[in-house]
Amino acid sequence: MAIEIKELTSRSEDYSRWYNDLVIKADLAETSAVRGCMVIKPYGYAIWEKIQAELDRMFKETGHVNAYFPLFIPKSFLSKEAEHVEGFAKECAVVTHHRLKNDPNGNGVVVDPEAKLEEELIVRPTSETIIWNTYKNWIQSYRDLPILCNQWANVVRWEMRTRLFLRTAEFLWQEGHTAHATKAEALEEAEKMLHVYADFAENFMAVPVLRGTKSANERFAGALETYCIEALMQDGKALQAGTSHFLGQNFAKAFDVTFVNKENKPEYVWATSWGVSTRLMGALIMTHSDDNGLVLPPNLAPFQVVIVPIYKNEEQLNAITAKVNELTAKLKALGISVKFDNNDTKKPGWKFAEYELKGVPVRLAMGARDLENGTVEVARRDTLTKETVSMENIELYISNLLKEIQKNIFQKAFDYRASMTREVNSYDEFKVEIEKGGFLLCHWDGTPETEELIKEETKATIRCIPITDQKKEGKCMVTGKPSTQRVVFARAY
Amino acid sequence: MAIEIKELTSRSEDYSRWYNDLVIKADLAETSAVRGCMVIKPYGYAIWEKIQAELDRMFKETGHVNAYFPLFIPKSFLSKEAEHVEGFAKECAVVTHHRLKNDPNGNGVVVDPEAKLEEELIVRPTSETIIWNTYKNWIQSYRDLPILCNQWANVVRWEMRTRLFLRTAEFLWQEGHTAHATKAEALEEAEKMLHVYADFAENFMAVPVLRGTKSANERFAGALETYCIEALMQDGKALQAGTSHFLGQNFAKAFDVTFVNKENKPEYVWATSWGVSTRLMGALIMTHSDDNGLVLPPNLAPFQVVIVPIYKNEEQLNAITAKVNELTAKLKALGISVKFDNNDTKKPGWKFAEYELKGVPVRLAMGARDLENGTVEVARRDTLTKETVSMENIELYISNLLKEIQKNIFQKAFDYRASMTREVNSYDEFKVEIEKGGFLLCHWDGTPETEELIKEETKATIRCIPITDQKKEGKCMVTGKPSTQRVVFARAY
Repeated sequence: MAIEIKELTSRSEDYSRWYNDLVIKADLAETSAVRGCMVIKPYGYAIWEKIQAELDRMFKETGHVNAYFPLFIPKSFLSKEAEHVEGFAKECAVVTHHRLKNDPNGNGVVVDPEAKLEEELIVRPTSETIIWNTYKNWIQSYRDLPILCNQWANVVRWEMRTRLFLRTAEFLWQEGHTAHATKAEALEEAEKMLHVYADFAENFMAVPVLRGTKSANERFAGALETYCIEALMQDGKALQAGTSHFLGQNFAKAFDVTFVNKENKPEYVWATSWGVSTRLMGALIMTHSDDNGLVLPPNLAPFQVVIVPIYKNEEQLNAITAKVNELTAKLKALGISVKFDNNDTKKPGWKFAEYELKGVPVRLAMGARDLENGTVEVARRDTLTKETVSMENIELYISNLLKEIQKNIFQKAFDYRASMTREVNSYDEFKVEIEKGGFLLCHWDGTPETEELIKEETKATIRCIPITDQKKEGKCMVTGKPSTQRVVFARAY
Repeated sequence: MAIEIKELTSRSEDYSRWYNDLVIKADLAETSAVRGCMVIKPYGYAIWEKIQAELDRMFKETGHVNAYFPLFIPKSFLSKEAEHVEGFAKECAVVTHHRLKNDPNGNGVVVDPEAKLEEELIVRPTSETIIWNTYKNWIQSYRDLPILCNQWANVVRWEMRTRLFLRTAEFLWQEGHTAHATKAEALEEAEKMLHVYADFAENFMAVPVLRGTKSANERFAGALETYCIEALMQDGKALQAGTSHFLGQNFAKAFDVTFVNKENKPEYVWATSWGVSTRLMGALIMTHSDDNGLVLPPNLAPFQVVIVPIYKNEEQLNAITAKVNELTAKLKALGISVKFDNNDTKKPGWKFAEYELKGVPVRLAMGARDLENGTVEVARRDTLTKETVSMENIELYISNLLKEIQKNIFQKAFDYRASMTREVNSYDEFKVEIEKGGFLLCHWDGTPETEELIKEETKATIRCIPITDQKKEGKCMVTGKPSTQRVVFARAY
């Protein structure tokens, strides 16, 4: 029989096309009729739902609550924080009218010029301004603090060049916005959320990340300090996977949000904001997947186990189905999600290729001989290995296997990153090494000018200044001026 | 001591103001700086999250999956379905530009006229058009059907007169969009989702609803049949709480979506769509609450039990806290959510009033004498009754009490509705009865003209044509023409 394989470009041939092919062919997402906006398909959305559920649990465990703020931001709000407007007001979706009408010339519907808004509304690119305008009414006294709100929402940034999940005009995300009585407490919050993100990325997504702060050039528009987690993709490029910002009193001052402290004196409120988005889907795909398709960590797989029956006639299928039903019940009792694919219009070979493409962690195949022998064939997606295993206590075997796969794909990504991370001591060496990709640990004199020069000449940016107890001094690889610690350079998404 | 009570307007004094006061004072939502858009506050959002979680579970149990489609709809898409554009394209948020720039005259930022979009984008008022444009690429053969997608999203309809939760420019909702090979299957789906909504409203929200179809005048723009659930509020006005539409082949034809059937012939695809929104929050509040504040069904309460300690000194508080911790563990083991309010800056009387306002189903008060006697004071929010109960097996007592409260508030609403539902046989009688509110069951000749006349003269509309096996014929109360069954009239939100 001819197996219809969905051909995937290989990573070595064209990494960027491999990624795009994979997103489309594994049914994760597709472009839409609206420029820059994607459709997240059910299989992709099921992964996003698992990301959401776990993050939401972690946010609530650390004392946060969810709320919802308006989609629209009055234009004047964006101007209130000077750096913020520079960063966000430029490329955005602007609502100018609130009505269409029938075209008097009969060409469908047209904008009704009489329905022009007094003030234009911006579709939120991020919600600091509308939220701090709201917090103004929520905060009077130190007793009203802290406020620890998170929002799950869609946001729009009018990107010129878009890529599915990595950079889209509309994307889904969560944005935490907290208000505190002291600087120390706000800093602690911003750092806490950095670690929540890092724990989530490593333990749940199996994506190793560096934790650090951004240089001034790369900071969020309006932040005094931006904490970030940075991951390394298989093409040697870095991907910023989440950020947490210490906003100081900038937004409190812009929106005049003060509180009366315990000494009965007014003070401006301290702020943080932090977010991760559907961009995490891009990080997930590019960290683990291979030329055969997706590789999903068991924690995020829409179904962790797929069972494919191999049969010649209905009698065999019935016997296999009975056995599968028993096994499925046992697996579900252990919290393992299972799909039994008894679709009769597809051959087993087609199904094998399909589930490999879709990254299902464990595939079981059961045929007539397995029934006789009390066995089942177990295939691992991560290693592409197969073995025949006894059905006795098979559910425990699979439960352990899923844990091992989760661990193995993290280790694989960790080892890759280790192999691609190295210290570089001269700018000449840097120019050679940066072409090979990966994280380069270098001394830098701390000035935006040097950073800018390196970026112009090599397209590399400072991904982060690592948070570490073991700072070692040195000299900037470009200027020779003193440096307090090595920072991480890479080319990035 | 002076107890600071948040004064609530009474229902009899001004029902509409009572509702608005309650939404604000119970911290559910508030108006925002953006006309017609609300902020859903954490306590309100926690209820919405419970609504979402249960509905999502029910959708998945009936075979649906979630996906995500773009926020924006190209203007030309709205014109493709003639009735749809009449219904939705008129009052909407229109994005015309994608950039702001610094005002050359120094007045902040202004719209950049050079960044005008070639085609305007509409912020989705509902997503049939963008989704059917997408489905066109997903559907070739009968094997691709059915498609059973749901989306959780925000939508915008430019309402002129808005009220928190009931009618806002932006609101949150879910919209199911399904595609089928046959008319019968699509009809079955639309009816199935009507019953899912009705089950949810009655069993989870404790809101009794009528199930029926809409008259042609009240149908969704583009539907051949609209199924609905209708609830009755305490002021005698009806509230449409959810709708499910059989769309026929209208959208398939508008977007040219065909499939090859088993006989290898092309056919247009059959469609349904169905949705409920944050409007359900309005139904919830107005069905159960009273002049003391919210009354929440235990299934939807952010916390089901609040425990207030009554103490004179820290020693007493410590002893109470130890007891409370034991009890809390037992309650949580039974899946009951608990808040222990040991805030020292508020008096017990203030807390009692606060949790009454917020509708917490069960309030426990524990003082020094209770510790001595092995008792606790249990107060029910629904009946406002209190009793002293032994601590022995108190967790089971509370578990049963929560079930009883859930049942009781449904019954109360059911009885109220029954008392407000009556048959009316003449139009003169109708004009008198409609002033008293409630559901009036009347014979109607089935014409839009008669319906329109009644609406003009009495402000009453046909809320639904009930789904029933016991149709009784009669004569239209206005024209005397034959009628096949009584339909339900009311004034409505």
